[in-house]
Amino acid sequence: MSVVAPAGFVAGGVASGIKPEGLDLALIDAGAPVTTAAVFTTSRTAAPPVLLGKERVRRGALRAVLVNSGCANAGTGAAGLEDARKMAASAAAVLGCPEEEVLVSSTGPIGSRLPLDLIGAALPELVAGAGSTPAHGLACAEAIMTTDSVPKTAVRHGTGFTVGGVAKGAGMLRPDMATMLAYLTTDAQVPTAAHARRILADAVGVTFNCLNVDGCQSTNDTVVLMANGASGVSPDPEELAEAVLEVCRDLTWQLARDAEGATKVVTIDVVGAASHGDARRIALAVADSALVRSSFYGADPNWGRVLAAVGVAGPAVAAEDVDIDYLDVPVCRSGAGVPFDEDLLASLLGGDFGIRIRVGDGPGACQVITTDLTPDYVRFNGERS
Amino acid sequence: MSVVAPAGFVAGGVASGIKPEGLDLALIDAGAPVTTAAVFTTSRTAAPPVLLGKERVRRGALRAVLVNSGCANAGTGAAGLEDARKMAASAAAVLGCPEEEVLVSSTGPIGSRLPLDLIGAALPELVAGAGSTPAHGLACAEAIMTTDSVPKTAVRHGTGFTVGGVAKGAGMLRPDMATMLAYLTTDAQVPTAAHARRILADAVGVTFNCLNVDGCQSTNDTVVLMANGASGVSPDPEELAEAVLEVCRDLTWQLARDAEGATKVVTIDVVGAASHGDARRIALAVADSALVRSSFYGADPNWGRVLAAVGVAGPAVAAEDVDIDYLDVPVCRSGAGVPFDEDLLASLLGGDFGIRIRVGDGPGACQVITTDLTPDYVRFNGERS
Repeated sequence: MSVVAPAGFVAGGVASGIKPEGLDLALIDAGAPVTTAAVFTTSRTAAPPVLLGKERVRRGALRAVLVNSGCANAGTGAAGLEDARKMAASAAAVLGCPEEEVLVSSTGPIGSRLPLDLIGAALPELVAGAGSTPAHGLACAEAIMTTDSVPKTAVRHGTGFTVGGVAKGAGMLRPDMATMLAYLTTDAQVPTAAHARRILADAVGVTFNCLNVDGCQSTNDTVVLMANGASGVSPDPEELAEAVLEVCRDLTWQLARDAEGATKVVTIDVVGAASHGDARRIALAVADSALVRSSFYGADPNWGRVLAAVGVAGPAVAAEDVDIDYLDVPVCRSGAGVPFDEDLLASLLGGDFGIRIRVGDGPGACQVITTDLTPDYVRFNGERS
Repeated sequence: MSVVAPAGFVAGGVASGIKPEGLDLALIDAGAPVTTAAVFTTSRTAAPPVLLGKERVRRGALRAVLVNSGCANAGTGAAGLEDARKMAASAAAVLGCPEEEVLVSSTGPIGSRLPLDLIGAALPELVAGAGSTPAHGLACAEAIMTTDSVPKTAVRHGTGFTVGGVAKGAGMLRPDMATMLAYLTTDAQVPTAAHARRILADAVGVTFNCLNVDGCQSTNDTVVLMANGASGVSPDPEELAEAVLEVCRDLTWQLARDAEGATKVVTIDVVGAASHGDARRIALAVADSALVRSSFYGADPNWGRVLAAVGVAGPAVAAEDVDIDYLDVPVCRSGAGVPFDEDLLASLLGGDFGIRIRVGDGPGACQVITTDLTPDYVRFNGERS
C-alpha cells in the first residue's frame, strides 16, 4: 500500500519517455499543504533538485512531491537549478497550487539536462490518474526505480494512524544511476515541522545512514516525510517515532537486499565504544573496507582484516580491548586470535550473517548494514553508461 | 643495487622456512649504530613489531633491521610483542650487538605466532652470508616480498653520496598478507636523527602516503631510513631531501605498478584547494571511491562519479568551482558537463592516465596515485587464505 496507505494521499506513476522504457515520473500529492520534513545528502556537490528542495522545506508546508527517474539533473550547474524550478512550476500549474508547494527529485545518470518537454507533456495524465489504490502506490514506487530490480514499499499501522513509504536504492551502489530516495507519508497529526524533522532525522540516522553498500554517497540522496493529520489522531510521540523508524528500517533492508552485485547482507554490530558516534565510525569503517567486504564474498572469516579496519577508523581503540565474533563464534579475544573451526564457520558464511565487535567497556553501540563486494559489482560499475 | 649501493651497508636474504618456498628472512646491517629515522602506520591496532620499532627508534641509533615475510606477527597480543623482542634478541646475539640496536619487521598473514625457532636457526647463515654486491641487495628485496610479483629496489646518486632503498607492497592491496614496508639507506652524513626524521617524513607524505590502492591501511606499515655517514659528505640539505624523495617516489610507483588485480595506474591531481591538506583529502576521497575506481577499470570517463566523490570528501567545495579534465580533455567546467568525444576519450583510457580536478583558486595542490578496481582484485581477496 505504500505512500497511499495513510488517509488523504494520492500517488501515481507514468512513462514520460525519459527512460527508454518503463515508468519514470512519480507523484505523491497531499491535496493541500501539509507538515513536511526532509533529510538531504550532505554532499557539497549536491544536485539542483536537492538545493531547491532544501529551500522549499525550510520555507514551509508542502503539498506534493514530483520525482523523475532516468536523469539525475546533477552536474548541470545553474541551468540545472533553473530546470528544477521549471519542473516544479509545471507540476504546480497542473495541480493548481503555488510552485513553492512542490518538491522535486531527480535520479539517474549524472551530467545531462532534464527533458522538461517530456515531463511537461506527461504531467496532465499523471495528475489526472493519481489515486489511492494499492496499484497507484506501486506505480509510484516503480516510477522512481533506476537499476532497482524490485519496487520497495513499506507500511506500519499505529493506534489510529498509519505510516507508509516508498524507496529506491540502486543508487547506494550505483550513484551513476544516482541516488537513494525515500518518501514517507502519514495521516498522524504532528504538532510542528520541527517535530517531524526530529522524528525523521532520528530514524534516518540509524537506518538509511547506517546502510553502507559502497561508501559512495550520492549527489541526490533525499528522504521526505509528509504528515497531513487526516486521521485526526495525535499519536503518542514515541509510538509515532517508532512507526517512522520501522518503515525506514524496512525500506533500508529492502535496499540492502537489492544491492546490485551483492550476494549477501552482513550486519556489523560495534559495542563497548565510548559513544554512539564512535561506534558508528568504527562500524562504517569496517563496512567501508574493500578487503573486509571481499572476504564476505569469499565466506572467509578473516577477522585480521576487521581488526585492521577497526585500527584505522579514527576513534581511540586499544588492540587488547578488541573482541570479534562471527555469528556468535569467538574468533578474536583481546586483540589476538583464538582457535575455532575455520571450515565449519566458513560454511556458515554463505548467506546473510552478522559480525559483532567489542572495542571496550563503553556505552556506545551501533549497527551498520552492508553487503559483500563482488566481481559482479566491479563489472557492472566498470561498464560505460 | 638497492640498500647496499651506499657505502658501508651489507644486506642479504635467506629461506628460513616460514614461507613454504622462497626467501623469507632479510637483513640490512650498518655494522655499527647509525642515525635512524622511521615512519610507522598510524593504526591503533598496530602490530607488535611496529610497537617495538617505535620504542627503539625513539631510543636512539640503530645498527640493523631484520625483516621476515610469511607471518605478520599481528593480532597476536602481548605474546606477539614478546616474540618481536625475542626475534630482535636472536639477531643481536648473532650480530654481537645490544638487542636495542636491532629493529624487526614482519609481514604476511595476520593472526598467527612467529616461528622463532625457524628464524633463530636461519640467522647464522643470514648474518654470515650478508654482503654488499647487487645480488645481496636483490636477495634482501626478494626476502621481504609476500604477494609481490617482482622485487622493488631504487638508487639515487647525489654529489658524493648515495641513497638506496627496497620496498614491498602487495600489502597495500592485500593487508591480509599484510603491509607496505620500505627501507632506505644512505652514506650521507646527516646532522641529527631529527633531521633524518624530517626528510623522511616529508618524502613519505607525498609518496607512500599518497598511494591509495584500496584505502586499506595495514597494521604493519613501516618506512625506515638509516644514515651511516660513510661517504664523509654532508650534502646540501635540499639535495639530500630530493634524493630521498626520489627514491621514495620511485618505489611508490613500483608498488602501484605491481598492485594485484590492477590493470592501470591513475594519477589524481587536485589543484586550487584552500591548502595542501584539503587537496590531499579530496584526491584521496576520489581514489577511495569504489565507483570511481570501477570506472577506471572500464575506461569510462565518468566525471559525474568524480564530482560526487569531491562533494563528500570533507573540505568546503562549491560545485560551480569544479573543473575536471581526463588526460587534458575538459569534461566538466563549473560543475557542469561540457561536450567531448566520449568514444575517443574512452579509447585513450585503456592504459595509465591522469585526472586533473580544479576545485577553486586556492594554493593547495596534491597528487595521489591509485589503480583501477577490478573483478580480479575482489576474486583474489575473496579467496580464503
